[in-house]
Amino acid sequence: MDKIYNFSANAAPLPEAVTAKLREQVFNYKGTGTSIMEVFPGTKEYTKILKDTELALRKVMDIPTGYTVLFLESPAAAQYSAIPLNLMSDRRSADYVVTGHASKAAQSEAKKFGDIAIAATSAGAGPIFSTVPRVERSDFRPDADYAYICHNDSIYGTKFANIPDTGSIPLAVDMTSSVLSEPVDFSKIALLLAGGECNIGVPGLTMVIIRGDLLGGCRADAPAMLNYKRLADSHSSEFAPSALGIYIAGQVFAWVDSMGGLEEMKRKSEKRASLIYDFLDGQSQEYYTSFTDKNCRSVTNVVFTTGDAELDRKFIAEAAEAGFINLAGHSSVGGMRASLYNSMPQEGVAALVDFMKQFKKNNPRF
Amino acid sequence: MDKIYNFSANAAPLPEAVTAKLREQVFNYKGTGTSIMEVFPGTKEYTKILKDTELALRKVMDIPTGYTVLFLESPAAAQYSAIPLNLMSDRRSADYVVTGHASKAAQSEAKKFGDIAIAATSAGAGPIFSTVPRVERSDFRPDADYAYICHNDSIYGTKFANIPDTGSIPLAVDMTSSVLSEPVDFSKIALLLAGGECNIGVPGLTMVIIRGDLLGGCRADAPAMLNYKRLADSHSSEFAPSALGIYIAGQVFAWVDSMGGLEEMKRKSEKRASLIYDFLDGQSQEYYTSFTDKNCRSVTNVVFTTGDAELDRKFIAEAAEAGFINLAGHSSVGGMRASLYNSMPQEGVAALVDFMKQFKKNNPRF
Repeated sequence: MDKIYNFSANAAPLPEAVTAKLREQVFNYKGTGTSIMEVFPGTKEYTKILKDTELALRKVMDIPTGYTVLFLESPAAAQYSAIPLNLMSDRRSADYVVTGHASKAAQSEAKKFGDIAIAATSAGAGPIFSTVPRVERSDFRPDADYAYICHNDSIYGTKFANIPDTGSIPLAVDMTSSVLSEPVDFSKIALLLAGGECNIGVPGLTMVIIRGDLLGGCRADAPAMLNYKRLADSHSSEFAPSALGIYIAGQVFAWVDSMGGLEEMKRKSEKRASLIYDFLDGQSQEYYTSFTDKNCRSVTNVVFTTGDAELDRKFIAEAAEAGFINLAGHSSVGGMRASLYNSMPQEGVAALVDFMKQFKKNNPRF
Repeated sequence: MDKIYNFSANAAPLPEAVTAKLREQVFNYKGTGTSIMEVFPGTKEYTKILKDTELALRKVMDIPTGYTVLFLESPAAAQYSAIPLNLMSDRRSADYVVTGHASKAAQSEAKKFGDIAIAATSAGAGPIFSTVPRVERSDFRPDADYAYICHNDSIYGTKFANIPDTGSIPLAVDMTSSVLSEPVDFSKIALLLAGGECNIGVPGLTMVIIRGDLLGGCRADAPAMLNYKRLADSHSSEFAPSALGIYIAGQVFAWVDSMGGLEEMKRKSEKRASLIYDFLDGQSQEYYTSFTDKNCRSVTNVVFTTGDAELDRKFIAEAAEAGFINLAGHSSVGGMRASLYNSMPQEGVAALVDFMKQFKKNNPRF
């Protein structure tokens, strides 16, 4: 094979331009002969990397000044606990929209800390989690401390077409698998959570962007590393993230900006996804099918199947041999999943569609 | 300068042999053209890296089979919360020995979760935290759920000469700044905690080694990411650490083994430290002083001062120009601190002592 295209849902490749810079810098940071991994919180170098990264993020995402940015050294799922611990008042109530495993896991974890209602769910409506429910402001309890959604479900390949309007109820949004693929309207979002492994590119680093007025409300008995106020005040302390992860994120943010910013990422994301969706929709006979509701298709995770588990396995194996790797769907869904994050070139998707056509030809079923 | 020696307490350089391997592998793992950062939990490659790293650690530290090893993606201080949440029974009591900031911070955090006593402390005995108190079994409450010490205090340059015998009370030991510098007697230790930034070499990765019978005792209302049983069962789940950190740790463990293991690391650590301590002790007039009690000197963090803040600053600046970097003491102590982790060559320490002699000659005070 000439070229490998990595369609992984969970550990996206970094953009090639960023990798090239990293090769140069990681082990010889600014020509010092030392590694970025040795740059430690509290030093001038560290503070500069952190500041540059935050500025690059604020620019590319157009984050309002009243929002605080936290870079955290922990898996994104740690925030399933942190969000209720920080956002709940004495009422301790919150309303979740459940549209897949990630939002279900967040909701289950939150139940440890308060009275959690499911405002809406797509479980049970047709094939499991194949759609995103219509969500109205009236679906949320008026006195809920916060509402919660997962913007894009990477397993089921669904996405909220619009961020719900929750009125005065602060909305927490997990954008792990959709961040940086479109502009964000912060007037609708009180807290944005994103794990680093998709469009940011670095597993282990998690990003929380939180409206300033929500910062000081953490329960006093919460573990220190989940207290947002403490984390916001502690960029030179024991909870500061490692320099490597922040540095890489900063390079990615600058790259996104240099490529045209989030409007352009949105255009490119939609174009990548439509290359596959248009092919799926245009088949005269449905060789490949997608169970995802057309009104809420993800642009970053395209899920499809031949409907035949044996044939799916053959597809995944032959695709890998041809250089299209990590196309297996999540174990709970099966079939195929092509994840199309920002680092995926259009020609990689076009080549995959060509492969899909060829495979169909070589393995006739009708 | 010909050569840079990095004496950082908080972000030790990796051994040169390990860095050489990383240069080769990080961006082209096993010749696949992909980065280790793209190797994701649940894949065969990830599982192999994790398994190899754990085996290398078990071999080099001679960990008894009844102990579970956890590699965690979070700062070491997250365990200040996790330890009480996991090790406390319904009695919710624990006894801490406080010998510096790290153990004090651990004790303060634990107070959120139960009845915490200070079994012994060196605060207040002479210059603050200049010594480690003598600790007897009778210092601990017989019904304490666990006891806690920080083995080596990297700020004050002290170390427990011996791990205290706590009898049937499980002992949790923070070895962040002393791990891999000497053999460990697990018959005295129920839980070993080590942040990755010193002798393991990777900030952001934290290691917990826990006796199997203590694994299932976490409070039901604890955040999932602090529940050891759940973490032990979830090496392919949302809480699995990133592959890069584990891979680097595995390379370091194998390197320690190839260099002769922990007995040899102990011999080398003591030799490195004695190069400086012997010089300090052998001065006919005390140009450099060390406030640390000779009976509990750290071998990984050597703290000293000229006794003159102005002269200390000059020393640190001129040392840096001569290639001896990161010698400034912690802000709460001032003076100088030479951290001598496993990657520091003996000749680096010998060269530092020569520099100390020369500086003394160039800046006479008597």
